Amino acid sequence: MIPHVPSLEKLVHELSRLPGIGPKTAQRLAYFVLKSPKEFNDSLRAALMAVKNDVKECPQCFSYTEAEDLCHYCSDPSRHEDVLCVVEDPADISRVEISGVFRGRYHVLQGAISPLDGIGPEQLKIQALLERIDQRQNEGGPVLREIILALDADLEGDTTVLYLAQLLRKRGLQVTRIAHGVPIGGDIDYVDHRTLGRAIENRVQL
Amino acid sequence: MIPHVPSLEKLVHELSRLPGIGPKTAQRLAYFVLKSPKEFNDSLRAALMAVKNDVKECPQCFSYTEAEDLCHYCSDPSRHEDVLCVVEDPADISRVEISGVFRGRYHVLQGAISPLDGIGPEQLKIQALLERIDQRQNEGGPVLREIILALDADLEGDTTVLYLAQLLRKRGLQVTRIAHGVPIGGDIDYVDHRTLGRAIENRVQL
Repeated sequence: MIPHVPSLEKLVHELSRLPGIGPKTAQRLAYFVLKSPKEFNDSLRAALMAVKNDVKECPQCFSYTEAEDLCHYCSDPSRHEDVLCVVEDPADISRVEISGVFRGRYHVLQGAISPLDGIGPEQLKIQALLERIDQRQNEGGPVLREIILALDADLEGDTTVLYLAQLLRKRGLQVTRIAHGVPIGGDIDYVDHRTLGRAIENRVQL
Repeated sequence: MIPHVPSLEKLVHELSRLPGIGPKTAQRLAYFVLKSPKEFNDSLRAALMAVKNDVKECPQCFSYTEAEDLCHYCSDPSRHEDVLCVVEDPADISRVEISGVFRGRYHVLQGAISPLDGIGPEQLKIQALLERIDQRQNEGGPVLREIILALDADLEGDTTVLYLAQLLRKRGLQVTRIAHGVPIGGDIDYVDHRTLGRAIENRVQL
């Protein structure tokens, strides 16, 4: 660290607030920025500013968007209206998209229920999901046939799945959860016993 | 990666230009910035702006400074004038300072001679170093007794040391280089043979 240069120390401090960036890495990054042409500093700040000013929440699915109204996935008329995929984070949408097997609509919860972190159902977009579904059913919109829960396979994901399943079944909807099992290309020798147990339970007729 | 959000893609692109930050890490950082309170975005941009606007090169030693004229080390009247420590980068100054055994002045070369990277003596602050020394000697300033070369122990450092030693000896100056040897706390078993050879050659009378 170069001492007696307060603005450099400040930049190191700010960079070390980023996830996975410790003090040593923050120093290396700050030093790199300092040595870079001013254009890099300008374009980095412009990109930060644009993210802050231009990225909004989609009012329907709560993913990120830069569109004025609904996001890309909510406004695409070619997508199926009868199936809704519920995910934890906006980034999960692209993972589902890349799989290529889903062409319905999305809903982002913006997290999962985690009492230890003080995150209950009211901190998530669960109420909004129920309102979205109820509104569709009351207004006689296109029939919603199935809700796919594509949440993480951890404790928080499981809790949220159980909570949602209860609420959604009451509404007469088919609720499914993405399968757990041996990953494609995975070796059974290296799969943990809970995953293998689930893979056996949920075996598929050939 | 969240698709169809151009400003997020732009931020990922800018962040992945930082050293050691690959596309995956850049995505994680960009996503963190997006989810953070706007205050973090603001303070990060302010820190980048401050580094760009406030940090200058010291006109004497070519380290970084925010002072109007000479840097902290060049303007400190308590430091010894008779010995000058030559380093590659500004960050090296703090490493020498932490050692606590040097109280003279500094000169930053801003790199080392590396023909493979197209860096010759003229790309470094070598001419400025010679002028600084000549000016002192011509103007009858405080006598400069010794130049300590604290450069890296790699090929580029060695080349630069040889080049500088030749030029500085011509000026009747004592030129020294920091010692190579077994690191303090180091086990001889794990020291490479070149380092051990150098440590034996440069053995110290007890």
